[in-house]
Amino acid sequence: MPTTVPASHRDLLSAPVGSLTTIGADGGPQATLTWFVFDEADGHFKLSLNTDRLKTKNLRKRPQVSLLIPDPANPMRFMDVRGHAHAEPDPDYAWAVAHVNPKYGADVREFDAPGSERLIVTIEPRNIYAVEIPG
Amino acid sequence: MPTTVPASHRDLLSAPVGSLTTIGADGGPQATLTWFVFDEADGHFKLSLNTDRLKTKNLRKRPQVSLLIPDPANPMRFMDVRGHAHAEPDPDYAWAVAHVNPKYGADVREFDAPGSERLIVTIEPRNIYAVEIPG
Repeated sequence: MPTTVPASHRDLLSAPVGSLTTIGADGGPQATLTWFVFDEADGHFKLSLNTDRLKTKNLRKRPQVSLLIPDPANPMRFMDVRGHAHAEPDPDYAWAVAHVNPKYGADVREFDAPGSERLIVTIEPRNIYAVEIPG
Repeated sequence: MPTTVPASHRDLLSAPVGSLTTIGADGGPQATLTWFVFDEADGHFKLSLNTDRLKTKNLRKRPQVSLLIPDPANPMRFMDVRGHAHAEPDPDYAWAVAHVNPKYGADVREFDAPGSERLIVTIEPRNIYAVEIPG
């Protein structure tokens, strides 16, 4: 199963959002849209997530996740990154400021309540399912 | 947990695609974009799926699914329909022709190889998570 992004879908690496699915306590899927950054150095997908979100709690307990990235201009074209997530602290938002803020032209710190903490969540692909449905 | 679509997000019922997540044999999530139809009569979300697709096989074995519906015009607005799916035959594509074709202005039969079979997949919501992130 491919773990790298095919040339046909590399433009989606700069897409604005992905649908992150985690597994809830009942074993069922829960999805939310999220910002993401692709790290060319290691081929991993990285997110900045608040520690208090359910999705964060889910993936710390059950690391299997999916990140579906749709083409904003073509609803029949997308890729689904299936893999395992691991989380590490992001003290003082250093990683988020360096990597998320430039992609989005925003400051992630403005979205958080005082005293919030963020994690760097890294998704290591185990299978990248890239699709374009003709039609 | 709400099982009906909030008034704030009812416009998403006519959105073109949703991200359907099923659970694979390894317990991990797998997502694909799919067409869907909302049934006002029973409040369920319905799909026409080919019997030979992996997502179809997944949900027949493990009925917990998520259908995330993004707002095509606003990446920070979406709803996630979490529930159980069940599948029933759709002989001669009768349901798909009556309900999917009109929404999409297309004929689903044209996408299928000769001899294909379709199922009507019904998602009964157990929790609808509707989000609009300000920013």
